[in-house]
Amino acid sequence: MTEKTEKPWGGRFSEGTDEEVEAFTTSLHFDRRLYQYDIEGSIAHARMLAKQGIIPKSEARAIIAGLKDICGDIAAGEFFFNPDDEDIHMAIEKALILRVGEVGGKLHTGRSRNDQVALDTRLYLRAQSDDLIKLVRNLQLALVEQAKKEMGVIIPGYTHMQKAQPVLLSHYLLSFWEMFDRDLARLNDCRRRVNVMPLGAAALAGTGLPVDRQCVARILKFPRVTQNSMDTVSDRDFVAEFIFVASLLMMHLSRFCEDLVLWSTDEFGYIEIADSFTTGSSIMPQKKNPDVAELIRGKTGRVYGDLVAVLTLLKGLPMTYNRDLQEDKEALFDAVDTTKASLRIFTMMIGHIAFKRERMECGAEGGFSTATDIAEYLVRMGTPFREAHGIVGRIVAYCIKNKKVLTELTMKEFLDFYSGFDEDVFKYLTVKQSVGARKERGGTAEETVRARIAEIESGD
Amino acid sequence: MTEKTEKPWGGRFSEGTDEEVEAFTTSLHFDRRLYQYDIEGSIAHARMLAKQGIIPKSEARAIIAGLKDICGDIAAGEFFFNPDDEDIHMAIEKALILRVGEVGGKLHTGRSRNDQVALDTRLYLRAQSDDLIKLVRNLQLALVEQAKKEMGVIIPGYTHMQKAQPVLLSHYLLSFWEMFDRDLARLNDCRRRVNVMPLGAAALAGTGLPVDRQCVARILKFPRVTQNSMDTVSDRDFVAEFIFVASLLMMHLSRFCEDLVLWSTDEFGYIEIADSFTTGSSIMPQKKNPDVAELIRGKTGRVYGDLVAVLTLLKGLPMTYNRDLQEDKEALFDAVDTTKASLRIFTMMIGHIAFKRERMECGAEGGFSTATDIAEYLVRMGTPFREAHGIVGRIVAYCIKNKKVLTELTMKEFLDFYSGFDEDVFKYLTVKQSVGARKERGGTAEETVRARIAEIESGD
Amino acid sequence: MTEKTEKPWGGRFSEGTDEEVEAFTTSLHFDRRLYQYDIEGSIAHARMLAKQGIIPKSEARAIIAGLKDICGDIAAGEFFFNPDDEDIHMAIEKALILRVGEVGGKLHTGRSRNDQVALDTRLYLRAQSDDLIKLVRNLQLALVEQAKKEMGVIIPGYTHMQKAQPVLLSHYLLSFWEMFDRDLARLNDCRRRVNVMPLGAAALAGTGLPVDRQCVARILKFPRVTQNSMDTVSDRDFVAEFIFVASLLMMHLSRFCEDLVLWSTDEFGYIEIADSFTTGSSIMPQKKNPDVAELIRGKTGRVYGDLVAVLTLLKGLPMTYNRDLQEDKEALFDAVDTTKASLRIFTMMIGHIAFKRERMECGAEGGFSTATDIAEYLVRMGTPFREAHGIVGRIVAYCIKNKKVLTELTMKEFLDFYSGFDEDVFKYLTVKQSVGARKERGGTAEETVRARIAEIESGD
Amino acid sequence: MTEKTEKPWGGRFSEGTDEEVEAFTTSLHFDRRLYQYDIEGSIAHARMLAKQGIIPKSEARAIIAGLKDICGDIAAGEFFFNPDDEDIHMAIEKALILRVGEVGGKLHTGRSRNDQVALDTRLYLRAQSDDLIKLVRNLQLALVEQAKKEMGVIIPGYTHMQKAQPVLLSHYLLSFWEMFDRDLARLNDCRRRVNVMPLGAAALAGTGLPVDRQCVARILKFPRVTQNSMDTVSDRDFVAEFIFVASLLMMHLSRFCEDLVLWSTDEFGYIEIADSFTTGSSIMPQKKNPDVAELIRGKTGRVYGDLVAVLTLLKGLPMTYNRDLQEDKEALFDAVDTTKASLRIFTMMIGHIAFKRERMECGAEGGFSTATDIAEYLVRMGTPFREAHGIVGRIVAYCIKNKKVLTELTMKEFLDFYSGFDEDVFKYLTVKQSVGARKERGGTAEETVRARIAEIESGD
Repeated sequence: MTEKTEKPWGGRFSEGTDEEVEAFTTSLHFDRRLYQYDIEGSIAHARMLAKQGIIPKSEARAIIAGLKDICGDIAAGEFFFNPDDEDIHMAIEKALILRVGEVGGKLHTGRSRNDQVALDTRLYLRAQSDDLIKLVRNLQLALVEQAKKEMGVIIPGYTHMQKAQPVLLSHYLLSFWEMFDRDLARLNDCRRRVNVMPLGAAALAGTGLPVDRQCVARILKFPRVTQNSMDTVSDRDFVAEFIFVASLLMMHLSRFCEDLVLWSTDEFGYIEIADSFTTGSSIMPQKKNPDVAELIRGKTGRVYGDLVAVLTLLKGLPMTYNRDLQEDKEALFDAVDTTKASLRIFTMMIGHIAFKRERMECGAEGGFSTATDIAEYLVRMGTPFREAHGIVGRIVAYCIKNKKVLTELTMKEFLDFYSGFDEDVFKYLTVKQSVGARKERGGTAEETVRARIAEIESGD
Repeated sequence: MTEKTEKPWGGRFSEGTDEEVEAFTTSLHFDRRLYQYDIEGSIAHARMLAKQGIIPKSEARAIIAGLKDICGDIAAGEFFFNPDDEDIHMAIEKALILRVGEVGGKLHTGRSRNDQVALDTRLYLRAQSDDLIKLVRNLQLALVEQAKKEMGVIIPGYTHMQKAQPVLLSHYLLSFWEMFDRDLARLNDCRRRVNVMPLGAAALAGTGLPVDRQCVARILKFPRVTQNSMDTVSDRDFVAEFIFVASLLMMHLSRFCEDLVLWSTDEFGYIEIADSFTTGSSIMPQKKNPDVAELIRGKTGRVYGDLVAVLTLLKGLPMTYNRDLQEDKEALFDAVDTTKASLRIFTMMIGHIAFKRERMECGAEGGFSTATDIAEYLVRMGTPFREAHGIVGRIVAYCIKNKKVLTELTMKEFLDFYSGFDEDVFKYLTVKQSVGARKERGGTAEETVRARIAEIESGD
Repeated sequence: MTEKTEKPWGGRFSEGTDEEVEAFTTSLHFDRRLYQYDIEGSIAHARMLAKQGIIPKSEARAIIAGLKDICGDIAAGEFFFNPDDEDIHMAIEKALILRVGEVGGKLHTGRSRNDQVALDTRLYLRAQSDDLIKLVRNLQLALVEQAKKEMGVIIPGYTHMQKAQPVLLSHYLLSFWEMFDRDLARLNDCRRRVNVMPLGAAALAGTGLPVDRQCVARILKFPRVTQNSMDTVSDRDFVAEFIFVASLLMMHLSRFCEDLVLWSTDEFGYIEIADSFTTGSSIMPQKKNPDVAELIRGKTGRVYGDLVAVLTLLKGLPMTYNRDLQEDKEALFDAVDTTKASLRIFTMMIGHIAFKRERMECGAEGGFSTATDIAEYLVRMGTPFREAHGIVGRIVAYCIKNKKVLTELTMKEFLDFYSGFDEDVFKYLTVKQSVGARKERGGTAEETVRARIAEIESGD
Repeated sequence: MTEKTEKPWGGRFSEGTDEEVEAFTTSLHFDRRLYQYDIEGSIAHARMLAKQGIIPKSEARAIIAGLKDICGDIAAGEFFFNPDDEDIHMAIEKALILRVGEVGGKLHTGRSRNDQVALDTRLYLRAQSDDLIKLVRNLQLALVEQAKKEMGVIIPGYTHMQKAQPVLLSHYLLSFWEMFDRDLARLNDCRRRVNVMPLGAAALAGTGLPVDRQCVARILKFPRVTQNSMDTVSDRDFVAEFIFVASLLMMHLSRFCEDLVLWSTDEFGYIEIADSFTTGSSIMPQKKNPDVAELIRGKTGRVYGDLVAVLTLLKGLPMTYNRDLQEDKEALFDAVDTTKASLRIFTMMIGHIAFKRERMECGAEGGFSTATDIAEYLVRMGTPFREAHGIVGRIVAYCIKNKKVLTELTMKEFLDFYSGFDEDVFKYLTVKQSVGARKERGGTAEETVRARIAEIESGD
């Protein structure tokens, strides 16, 4: 059992904290990564305390110098983190007092760890959001690059994993651009709610000292301060929201990866991922596996798990701060790390994929993928769509039975199914025509896709 | 086994669908609630087809009349839903053809169920979001009303469920106002992403017919259309995002409910929920249970479950539409219904709670809740906060040991702990003073809380 | 507002329950499906009350007759469920009093809805578990049937979705047999924990009346009674455990379905699901989609969601019964229904799949799938495995570069890579040999697979 | 980019793995904690290879000596883990070859990392399950100790957090004994499914070499071997099942913690947790917080998150091994660590709680907690329960209105409500009588609780 006097909050306690309890409750091993934000926040706080005359300016200077000193040491790996310290806040405050003397004990004036940790987490998450936004943009750029490079390549579009209609590879790639664009929008929306200054809420009620919260906000570049001290210390919405946004992002990656794994199979054979982005088997000498794509797909579950962890811990928690909230951080860090790493490696991988155009175009020819075009041709001739659909369905059944493809049918065969056909029908049987016809906004025609790229490129 | 010719898409099939398969795959029993949106979308589609000359205007008129007819019948409960029909889209199309003849078969021109269901879901969710926004606003209003009515009442503020510092009941109530305000912001952000027009994506590639998507968007009051047909039919981000937003909303309610259940205990005794909002026990005659609050707390899990359901089904899905996506709807409906019902009943309950002011104020006196004020008093006298904290901690330990409260201490006792005390210290021992001192924005002082209310009321 | 006297527990209330509160808190619309278990339990309870002399035998007879009467009416659809009744227990008790008079009011002697609903749920879940066990066994039988029918057919075995080594289709099918066998074991383990009799716990403390719990257990065929009244009314472990077991079951189905969807693609082409087990497209006339497999895969998320719902609601609930627990039921019912329906349709579908043997065997030849056999051949010759792996890896690289398959290599080419090769190597290049060599228990050799089938068939 | 020849599987690759890919795909930083199981399994494998004559005995001896050497070094912290190595398997194999020469390359004969990692994980989880079983037993012992020590102390039993009926504190404590006993049963059931030997499945198909799987199983003390090689390498049921079992365990702890937090409040005041098991506030000098209980409650979400992570990654995974499966380990490790640490600290905390008997017994008197006893008294007099319930309900309403407790009522007052009362009623008004009356198995009477303790103590 530790000596009773050690803890900075130990005044009312007659017994020290049990060592196992310390080990169980400490957050230092994970929250130390917040150190720069903790110090940045403390410096702003000290400046404000001095400005308000709550502490003398000279003392603030000593505190700030001490904090910068500590920050430098931690960055250089020269700071000793004592596992006995409960958390990063206490570790730094203790070090500060050691370095600058009793005056260091004035830093915690008018604040509590409850608002301090909210500030640290928000500063951290604001910075991480900015990183993530950049990573998503890079991925979008990579997609646009590939879309431009592969312009004109036709692939089979699938629904239910069955060949459905031919589309441009570029159109396919840009479909993910759109998903990531929504992720960006969500990241920005979330960042706005992260970017609110909590300090001054103190333990839960605000402080009786004449602090100036707007001043701290200005120093730390927060456009707004929180509006209710009780809410401020118990709010972890921004943590949950961020992990949710990351979950959708990972989900999008997981879908992309699913396709890449699929397309890497011998059977599809639409892409080859470079050797440097695949790995082998410890037993089977011939194997080359799309491990990166599989791992990202698997890591989606991990981020979902982080989300469930945070949602669960928040459910039914009484107001205001409860120690359960400490458990938000590892989930958040894991979601941030996983999503950033996945995005970074995925973007690199996109540049190391060879698209096998012939295989793809050949694949696009299969599966009667222009059947809908024939139906639409009949519609243009005045046949109700539902009837046209039935006619073409019967033609397809005939082809399957007779092992033919649509382009092999004769005019007579067409007419046997429906007297309304004319020679024009043959124009509608090629995948090239099919793709080219889909010109309306959002469609897969080359001109439409090119226009979208132009829009995207001008839009940024 | 059903006759092979029945299905609208049955042309290529040589065998009908197995009956058990029909029962397993049908969505009619739940997606029929989308009927009005399905018809609204179909009417807009028909008008566009006519405007573009894809179908004659007269036929469009017949179709639209038929659709309105069907809509009226369903609304009146006079429409027979045939369980054999696969979904609401097919049920309505079949009814239409029966009513207006073969021309009804032209309605599905240039669209697919893939974009149609996306449209229906978005129309539904836009309307539901609007409902939910109103419900949240009503709850916020109710909170402000209570905050004004109970102005001045002091309660103990808790951290770790231990009495921490006294706060205003109004401040407590407004802390939830802030949470719900973030929910509103998230609802609006989500609604913006819901409010995008998908029709025209057809199956996945767009259509070769000369449709005008902007026209449909205008009719249905969508400010934007989707930008990529493949993304359009496989996107369920907006479903997941909505359920997440609802999850946080429910989480906030669950925390409020936790406190209400707690405050209803004999031990706390801070509130009494009206008889009409509680229920009794089948065995214990004396029981009066806060069932509504408990149920809402429990229903939080349900909405979380809906979220996990949707996230799981989206994980690793290949592009584009897969039948798995059909499973999004029941989760969405459940989340919408649960959240709306919980909000509505909770808002009503808020008006049926009697706050027992004396109990609360008496509670606020306990737990040495002004200890922080003494520490802050010492800080103002120049003592470093950390030292002040230690002094007051020892005073509290002394009080516990001697069964005293802070207001019972003599000047001599204060001075025994620290020579720096003067008579002023007695001013800092009352909860009223403690609350009143916390004047900075976000704090619990009455003037600050009143100012916040004024801001809120002018803000809308 | 309803009249205050209506509720069976309304004695202490001065006001009736608000109508909206009733609508919000009622469980009748979903727990009515428990009616037969509720009545079965009540009959056992009444018999016990009479046996113990707590109520006269004649009254018990009247009560039991009334209950049977009600049961018959509900079964026949001739019972009017009044939405005002809170739950199935109250609905039946009220009906009973109406039918048999005041004596019906004696049924609830010595019990509470808290232990009653635990009993109902356990009876229900015991029956459902038995159903599910049968359904899993049927699926296992279907797999063994297919395994016997397809004996000898070779398919490519995949890791990372890359062709790895040839295996028997029967071996593949039996791999799922093993998964479902673990599901069976878990179902049985769970059933043991379901099959414990809770009645007698009353509200939470047991009853002061001289009930005989073992007697009720005997009547209802429970081998054990619960051991602690407080635990009894707050325990929902068995609900969560069941949904977890169902989650793993669905997960196994989802993996099977993933493969079936994959194998149905034009690119794999290993199977064709019968027309009667697929559906078409509303727009693309050529489509035939494996909807059943997709839907089951999607429904996995739904059962996961049910699990999360129940786990969430249980987290942090204070002892003992809380109304939150009412929310366990819809999740449970949904998991039961979804899993049963999925199992049933999946088992039927297994019998409607045509395996395209030639495509499969042809596929198995590809991907250098016997490379490991060559390495193992070298090992037998004394080469360390790691070195052998390297040699064969280089041979594969050579083949890819020169567009050859292993069987096309000459002796000279083999010797160029490693002088230790002899003519025997050619024996190890065929998939048939590869499969046949894996004879050890668990391996894919035909004799091993046949032996396993024999074991399975004798084992039951 | 690393040199192409480095990887043990690099034969077929023309390019080395990208460094970032290595960093992304490596599992060494977390799977190194499996080292002792990896080595234990490898030793067994080497012994079997020698016994079967697949490698010479002398080589097996060299391999085994090398492995033991490595094991010792790792245990002593003297082994350098090269971050370039992909995983613990490759790190050890490479070190082995370095130490014992080329012969080390024979260790991987007849196995793959796919079955090797399954073996490692099963060995690890078997050991962890045993640890956990011991920890649960210790907690159960601690509960029985407390139950014996506090025998006779009466507390209020709660439903809906409202006082319901008086119960023994010992009965309350034993209710958790029952929950943990179910956890034990589930742990043992799960352990049975963990305890199956997977080696010999090799990559997915088994091996063509004459391995003896039963021999390996005997050496490693597995009672059974797996029955299907494909299932063996893709099965992670045991991981998911373990985490689920841990989830329920944590859920039980979370409920216990919820009550402890509640009972620590000033308002309840039923317990005092020792100073050594609580912590203070950085700002509020008077605070003493039940942090341990709060953290355990919060950590429940974490284990739920681990469960969702694993379930998500398994959903829809094609057969057999996919790299996604690597993501199972961190979730598993986290669930193991969290649950073990929570159990250990919780068990210690139970011994550091002072139950404040007078507060509790005083609390038990409140809330009309013997109302049910009066109703049961009337039932014994022949009144139908439902009617008795109504009478007592009205008496309670009368008491509340007149601010009386039941024991203060006069005979006349009783008779005013119901003429059937006689003097005996006063015997039923005390909590002591109420508790004592509940003698039936599972009830809260002291003799029943003592009997249960005797059963438990003899049962082990």
